[in-house]
Amino acid sequence: MAGSHWLSMQQVVEKLIERGHEVVVVIPEASWHMRTTDAYVVKTYPVSYTLEELDNAFHEYVAAHLKDLPFPLNTLAIYNSLTHIFRKLFVQCKDLFSSKETLQYLNQSGFDAVLTDPIVLCGATVANYFSLPSVFFVRGFPCSLEYKAPQCPSPLSYIPRTFISYSDRMTFFQRVENALLALLELVYCNGFYKDAVEFSSEVLQRDVSLLDLLSSASLWLLRFDFVFEYVRPVMPNMVFIGGINCARRKPLSKEFEAIVNASGEHGIIVFSLGSMVSEIPMKKAKEIAEALGSVPQTVLWRYTGEAPPNLPKNVKLVKWLPQNDLLAHPKTRAFITHGGSHGVYEGICNAVPMVLMPLFGDQMDNAKRVESRGAGVTLNILEMTSKDISAALKAVINDKKYKENIKRLSDLHLDRPIHPLDLAVHWVEFVMRHKGAPHLRPAAHDLNWIQYHSLDVIAFLLAVVLLSLFISVKCCLFCCRRCCFKKGRTRKPTKSKSH
Amino acid sequence: MAGSHWLSMQQVVEKLIERGHEVVVVIPEASWHMRTTDAYVVKTYPVSYTLEELDNAFHEYVAAHLKDLPFPLNTLAIYNSLTHIFRKLFVQCKDLFSSKETLQYLNQSGFDAVLTDPIVLCGATVANYFSLPSVFFVRGFPCSLEYKAPQCPSPLSYIPRTFISYSDRMTFFQRVENALLALLELVYCNGFYKDAVEFSSEVLQRDVSLLDLLSSASLWLLRFDFVFEYVRPVMPNMVFIGGINCARRKPLSKEFEAIVNASGEHGIIVFSLGSMVSEIPMKKAKEIAEALGSVPQTVLWRYTGEAPPNLPKNVKLVKWLPQNDLLAHPKTRAFITHGGSHGVYEGICNAVPMVLMPLFGDQMDNAKRVESRGAGVTLNILEMTSKDISAALKAVINDKKYKENIKRLSDLHLDRPIHPLDLAVHWVEFVMRHKGAPHLRPAAHDLNWIQYHSLDVIAFLLAVVLLSLFISVKCCLFCCRRCCFKKGRTRKPTKSKSH
Repeated sequence: MAGSHWLSMQQVVEKLIERGHEVVVVIPEASWHMRTTDAYVVKTYPVSYTLEELDNAFHEYVAAHLKDLPFPLNTLAIYNSLTHIFRKLFVQCKDLFSSKETLQYLNQSGFDAVLTDPIVLCGATVANYFSLPSVFFVRGFPCSLEYKAPQCPSPLSYIPRTFISYSDRMTFFQRVENALLALLELVYCNGFYKDAVEFSSEVLQRDVSLLDLLSSASLWLLRFDFVFEYVRPVMPNMVFIGGINCARRKPLSKEFEAIVNASGEHGIIVFSLGSMVSEIPMKKAKEIAEALGSVPQTVLWRYTGEAPPNLPKNVKLVKWLPQNDLLAHPKTRAFITHGGSHGVYEGICNAVPMVLMPLFGDQMDNAKRVESRGAGVTLNILEMTSKDISAALKAVINDKKYKENIKRLSDLHLDRPIHPLDLAVHWVEFVMRHKGAPHLRPAAHDLNWIQYHSLDVIAFLLAVVLLSLFISVKCCLFCCRRCCFKKGRTRKPTKSKSH
Repeated sequence: MAGSHWLSMQQVVEKLIERGHEVVVVIPEASWHMRTTDAYVVKTYPVSYTLEELDNAFHEYVAAHLKDLPFPLNTLAIYNSLTHIFRKLFVQCKDLFSSKETLQYLNQSGFDAVLTDPIVLCGATVANYFSLPSVFFVRGFPCSLEYKAPQCPSPLSYIPRTFISYSDRMTFFQRVENALLALLELVYCNGFYKDAVEFSSEVLQRDVSLLDLLSSASLWLLRFDFVFEYVRPVMPNMVFIGGINCARRKPLSKEFEAIVNASGEHGIIVFSLGSMVSEIPMKKAKEIAEALGSVPQTVLWRYTGEAPPNLPKNVKLVKWLPQNDLLAHPKTRAFITHGGSHGVYEGICNAVPMVLMPLFGDQMDNAKRVESRGAGVTLNILEMTSKDISAALKAVINDKKYKENIKRLSDLHLDRPIHPLDLAVHWVEFVMRHKGAPHLRPAAHDLNWIQYHSLDVIAFLLAVVLLSLFISVKCCLFCCRRCCFKKGRTRKPTKSKSH
């Protein structure tokens, strides 16, 4: 999986190579953030679209979030633009299986395992096609499939569904909404993945369902940590590696070191809307620039768009910034982020309070989590004014509770028996060594829906109870009748006598 | 908690001391396996019973399992003898809280955390009384309380209840039985723990329930590993440290080394019914002795009772044996065990196939697990003949599949990113450092039963659907009536015309 999904996966790949494994990274010719390198073997395959088309689809998707349409038009616009990207990404898989040369190469290379982000299903299909054990590297899925597929229970009463942006403490009506969303998901995800699943069935020459494909994973490496994620049931084949991306820390370059040092006692603010979004509409940019001028800190803003004309002096626009290294600097006071999971974990690792401007995907959910922990302030990117931004920034910088809360989260997060990167590598190697992890597969996979929920047992026990009741009542009635009849018979003669 | 429960806990205590912590072990004056030592500070408190009384209660309990009574008399006899022991153990807690000197000592010592096996609730009561965070060190509970208390779902369809001795692949009627047992548990455990919970409420001066007491744990250290335990949902505050007891491995003493070396190519069999049971009825001992004579291996039998008169030459009776070190010896061919969890994990760690003679507690469940993994043969201690024992021994020694299966389990079990003892120590220290682990507490604790299962949401949605249906039907009927009425009116004149 390309894009930001690749960023922390790359670290696992590099560590695996460091430990002496041979890793081949299979990349579509047009993709985000993935490129040929000397660090690992790369196998590219031709795709039937250009990078420009892919970029356009993504820009359309981001733009759909910035359009101020009324409900349900906004949701529909987002859904349509999302299916547009996913259709492109599904086509990747067709392209891969059309490339005979790639297939032959993969077939001959004798791999031990497939490490994949399964969100577009192609890695899962490849693993099934070559009968290889697979490790899924996941931040999340629509419809909470990362829990559904490994048969992990998700009580609707305290586990908000993906994209609903509620906390684990919901009011009654929020719980109703959560349940309705879960009902909607019963159809929504199957529709969303229909093309990809059909193609997988074609390739694997058997009827597979979405859950068949996903439940084939030997192990799930989930980029979660419970200082951030809501506490919930999990399964033994889930390994939690949230914060894995904080591993790579280098000293700042001279250029950045100079900017940070020049910031004086007020320190700096790091501002980035993530690796996937580097510009925003000028109107928004102007409002943000105005707000940034209202704080005494130096702001390092990763921005590749046209500079807003009202850019204040304390703001430095840069095309790229070493985010984790900057956040680790003791002079950093706040982090303005879109709420992507990588950024949020870097904020947590380095204990920097956040102002969140979520845009798409899991970002709204992430922002809600940070906010519900009291470690940041979330802004609605559509409605926020420069005053809101300024107030939010001043709050997270000057109100001590934000710093205290993020420091507490950070301490808890970093106090772990083993670094997430080492943990991830251990479990990938485990799957390679043991050809999977069948001992971690729950027996629930062999039950159908009725059996899993014990509906047949409940029906049987109810039937037994009702039958027993029925028989008891019948017996009683029979006895009563006998009694009455006898009484009747003893009375009758008396009656006839009286006549 | 004394007895075999203490054995692996002691290792955690010793490791904590090694790492510079101060640990005080609080011991009732009469207890099993716990004694004063130089390795750690021990605080004893007087109890109102003697060790002999406790021993007698335990012997009665074991004897109840060896009596060949018909159902339900056998179950009742076991239940009565078990409540007898537990009543004695509950009294410990009263004795502790009656000892003003002990309470004062505990109060003044400024502890960071309580590490306890909560099965008799006293540790949990102490932790609540002194408002200290607690870590529970557990093998298991009646009624699967170790899952119920931390709000961990346990689907009845594939998770056998404690003591039912089914595997995770149950037939329909086994699932019915499992559900019935779960229903029984709704009353059984509250009754079983009634006295202890009443006493805790008295001490804590507030009404506490069994689940209140148990759900106060910051962290659960569970002596489980999923090569052995059935795969099931778990919670983030559960840490799995199965096999923790295999840590302590020393070279054999000269005496044992000599016996093992003298066994020749056939090797040895290790035989122990655990630390709590050292003798059995003579009739059983004779049958076992006869069977042991039928195999060419040297048998090392831990037995303190009267030697059976038919003891064959290849059997050496010993009062104690270094079980884990013997099992680790390459000449060991089989392990005859009662199926206690410590022994089973030592069998797994050292890849020795097992013949299991479960007696009480979780031993039947453990034996079923080993058997369902194809790593051992279970015998019914009441019904087994010397032929059965001999056949079982020959099977696990000569049939390669047992050795292969236990080797596979062993390889999987030992392939872990961190040793269970280090993991346990890390999490105890974590709770000490952070004064608990509130970030791992699920929001489910704040919901009542109806809310947790979303029954209120289901009722509301049903009501909405039914009301909508009702209104729609009423509207339809109203419309129909209007139509009919109009038709009726238009028809009537026609009718009158025709007259």
